[in-house]
Amino acid sequence: MSVLNEVLDANKKYVDSFGEKGKLALPPARGFAILTCMDARLDPAKYAGLSEGDAHVIRNAGARASDDAIRSLVISYKLLGTKEWFVIHHSNCGMEFFTDVAMRDLLSKSLETAALGSEGFYDVGKGPGSNEGAYIDWLTISDRDKAVIEDVQRIRRHPLVPSNIPIHGYVYEVETGKLLEVPGAKQAGAAK
Amino acid sequence: MSVLNEVLDANKKYVDSFGEKGKLALPPARGFAILTCMDARLDPAKYAGLSEGDAHVIRNAGARASDDAIRSLVISYKLLGTKEWFVIHHSNCGMEFFTDVAMRDLLSKSLETAALGSEGFYDVGKGPGSNEGAYIDWLTISDRDKAVIEDVQRIRRHPLVPSNIPIHGYVYEVETGKLLEVPGAKQAGAAK
Repeated sequence: MSVLNEVLDANKKYVDSFGEKGKLALPPARGFAILTCMDARLDPAKYAGLSEGDAHVIRNAGARASDDAIRSLVISYKLLGTKEWFVIHHSNCGMEFFTDVAMRDLLSKSLETAALGSEGFYDVGKGPGSNEGAYIDWLTISDRDKAVIEDVQRIRRHPLVPSNIPIHGYVYEVETGKLLEVPGAKQAGAAK
Repeated sequence: MSVLNEVLDANKKYVDSFGEKGKLALPPARGFAILTCMDARLDPAKYAGLSEGDAHVIRNAGARASDDAIRSLVISYKLLGTKEWFVIHHSNCGMEFFTDVAMRDLLSKSLETAALGSEGFYDVGKGPGSNEGAYIDWLTISDRDKAVIEDVQRIRRHPLVPSNIPIHGYVYEVETGKLLEVPGAKQAGAAK
């Protein structure tokens, strides 16, 4: 079966057991938001105990505090009333295995998927590639805990972020499912 | 109990039933990615039938094809091998209820949460506000189906997106849980 049909089939089953969820309100019932990574192994609803309607979930490559993540967070509180935020990176994140230089080089060689070896990603595809990757900041990570603190700090210092919103910095451990507090993130994310 | 303690308590229960999930591989097992909205009512793992390890999930305010969403999608296929993508907006999206002008005006008045009335959002907070909102494109939505098609097209036309990746455009109906195909999105998202 194709991926599309698998998704639509799974959706039919979800619709059949949908119950009263159609009555949920637009603003998150539990008043908080989570920024986390797109990684397939992470299910924030499961690892943080969210039911439909509870909390905003923002996800991108690396759980980085990109301009777009901040756009989403500001909408989340200003229009929909969240008052507490989590930044949750994770162990074994793909963003730790490459650099801007490496990504730009890979993309310049081909647009096919690269392979991952002990030395990092290497290209196996056929060209043509594209130079467009040189114009993108890939927001890679070289130090996990430091990246969490920097992301928390970037959000904390943003002029549109109210001073009274606590921002929690955590790492999700993909090996155990555990949320680990990042030393130093508490101070960086403390409400002003 | 505080939100933080609730999340950590839920996480403990998840860890206790974690099973063999610590052995999941980094690349998504089912080779696809979903771009969807941060809305609290959406649980893409549930509405699309995803288990941990299956697929990348990217989320932002509106499920928009922002530069950051495209950064994440390009990493998703180039480094981690996804070959099929979904763009899934939803009904009753908050992004339909305001405009850049309205958001900038609200933020300039105060940084507290606004209220939603029949005429849209209105400010109830005390100043000071900030002019910083004038420098952000909030990526609001005025026509739901058109926005899906535009997002699919923006991704389709991006120079770093390989021509053979299908991109599916859908709307999740929050009233029923159903995924509805957007007329015209199929053509816009077809592999070249």
